[in-house]
Amino acid sequence: MKVTEKPIMSLAADHAACRVVIVDQTQLPFIVEQRVLLTWQDCAEAIRTMRVRGAPLIGVTAAYGIALAMQRDATDGALSTASKALAATRPTAVNLAWALDRMSRLLTTTDPADRADVAWAEADQIAAEDEDNNRRIGEHGLAIIRDIYAKTGRAVNILTHCNAGRMACTEWGTATAPIYLAHREGLPLHVWVEETRPRNQGLITQWELADAGVNHTYIVDNAGGHLMQHERVDLVIVGVDRVSRRGDVANKIGTYLKALAARDNGIPFYAAAPSSSIDMDIEDGVPEIEIEERDTSEVSMLRGWDRNGYVTDVRMLRDRTPISNPGFDVTPSRLVTGLITECGIFAPADLARSVAKGTCK
Amino acid sequence: MKVTEKPIMSLAADHAACRVVIVDQTQLPFIVEQRVLLTWQDCAEAIRTMRVRGAPLIGVTAAYGIALAMQRDATDGALSTASKALAATRPTAVNLAWALDRMSRLLTTTDPADRADVAWAEADQIAAEDEDNNRRIGEHGLAIIRDIYAKTGRAVNILTHCNAGRMACTEWGTATAPIYLAHREGLPLHVWVEETRPRNQGLITQWELADAGVNHTYIVDNAGGHLMQHERVDLVIVGVDRVSRRGDVANKIGTYLKALAARDNGIPFYAAAPSSSIDMDIEDGVPEIEIEERDTSEVSMLRGWDRNGYVTDVRMLRDRTPISNPGFDVTPSRLVTGLITECGIFAPADLARSVAKGTCK
Repeated sequence: MKVTEKPIMSLAADHAACRVVIVDQTQLPFIVEQRVLLTWQDCAEAIRTMRVRGAPLIGVTAAYGIALAMQRDATDGALSTASKALAATRPTAVNLAWALDRMSRLLTTTDPADRADVAWAEADQIAAEDEDNNRRIGEHGLAIIRDIYAKTGRAVNILTHCNAGRMACTEWGTATAPIYLAHREGLPLHVWVEETRPRNQGLITQWELADAGVNHTYIVDNAGGHLMQHERVDLVIVGVDRVSRRGDVANKIGTYLKALAARDNGIPFYAAAPSSSIDMDIEDGVPEIEIEERDTSEVSMLRGWDRNGYVTDVRMLRDRTPISNPGFDVTPSRLVTGLITECGIFAPADLARSVAKGTCK
Repeated sequence: MKVTEKPIMSLAADHAACRVVIVDQTQLPFIVEQRVLLTWQDCAEAIRTMRVRGAPLIGVTAAYGIALAMQRDATDGALSTASKALAATRPTAVNLAWALDRMSRLLTTTDPADRADVAWAEADQIAAEDEDNNRRIGEHGLAIIRDIYAKTGRAVNILTHCNAGRMACTEWGTATAPIYLAHREGLPLHVWVEETRPRNQGLITQWELADAGVNHTYIVDNAGGHLMQHERVDLVIVGVDRVSRRGDVANKIGTYLKALAARDNGIPFYAAAPSSSIDMDIEDGVPEIEIEERDTSEVSMLRGWDRNGYVTDVRMLRDRTPISNPGFDVTPSRLVTGLITECGIFAPADLARSVAKGTCK
């Protein structure tokens, strides 16, 4: 069961050929270009430069990075080197550390002669679990959309920020999984797709939704509050990079502003994530979750088609302009209606006792 | 007293030559190009296409449009035609209607033979009052910055959205007037300049502040909430397009989100405007203030320098993509700490009894 008939997969692994094929998401939606990753260094570069992006997908990519590393050199030293380097590529998303921990724990107790095969199998398993988790997130979230439709009897307006779609995962997406399932079921839907400056991942969400035939409208990030004020949004669903024990949600910069607007207008605000995104070591997300300060060129440069249809990068600010570019923010749990996980939907207060890292209780 | 030694004026009127010279703000900061307006139709085109922008400046431009109209044809019919067409160029900012009303009221009781001279003099007067109002707004707002500095003893961090700077006015700006005066006085300051999608007027603010030597950092709109959460903002000052009787503030889209974040973090949120921006006919701004739905190309197209340094427009979305582009939002008065006007600073509840349209009581 796939979102579209001939989907372009975010990642496809080929154990026999010892390679991983990704879509270079830095080019989307302007160019759909696949890239072949042959080494763990290729995987690290792809994660760091956001050729692969989205918390679940970077976890899966890192796991395959370990498999590629073990294929070449299955020693403890090589495992440690690859694992540390992959963990250092992006600090915010917990799935990366979670996937690398899982691989390391398994491989350190595996005979080096078997490590390559075991690593491939485990990475395949992590990818399969991601798809399964997302489908289950979709089923739980679908109930929320069904309820709203039952009450209003008109198209359900859902606002989403960034891309927590199938390109951020192996399949379905997290925030988009309920949307895709509702669309399959024939529920009337309309999605407000936020641009998500500075990297404009809304372009990827828009491209995904258009591909799947889901009714949507593209807006700048500034417009979300106004639309909520005027009762044009029934529900907000966003993805997650990391959730604290008490339910604070780290996600793409700007998410917090939409949670505030949702609260101010009585609109339910949900974050969708696999339980592997919950970091039980963190209580208060605002001071404790490290926020990436990303390259200023993300703010000053922008990509589009020029008048002749060529993909062109333009610069909006001169080099000397001081720029700050925090990549994420943290939405305090008091603003979160619920977390949609593969285990079910939980109010932040119930999260810690119902869901442990990567397992449903 | 000017902001910079050799400022590029947003507008300069020359009665003897019967012309008005503006900076084409659609080109800023990429190209600093002045344009000559010779007819009221030129003025209408400049307002509609946002070559001149900012609530105070479009009021002044419309007033000169009437003077140019009277120069050619001083009949009642010509006055009515020009006034109606100029009023229809932009619906949200009240200053436009206010300036046109003031011109019409004066000219209908003036002998047609004198109308051209009277109109020029009145437009000059409106421009001079704008500069004076802004200077007085600056002096009142300066007290707020001084107070914060007296408490913290470190550089005062001010966040602003859009451009309510001197390019939005004849001089000083509204939101920037306290900043320029504080800078003159040697108070240590740092301004967070929000990009302000879709039209990126933050580029103009950044250009203005750099020109005046004011310390600043450019950020995307999504980053403002995160910075407030981490105590990196002491004060928010924005401009205004229209204020309702009870103090609801219509301003550039996205302002409401920053007011919510300021409230959530206990940060004072001020709107700066001449009293002519107060619309006594409107009580509840959210349902009553008309919000412009602007052209979708503002969202889908973007301007920058290409790799060879040429100014280039790029397209981020294909033509068929559904886009919505509301130009403004309304911040409810409950989120507004105070209105900084030329008459003083007022809590929203005190606004109506202290300030009438265009006059201090």
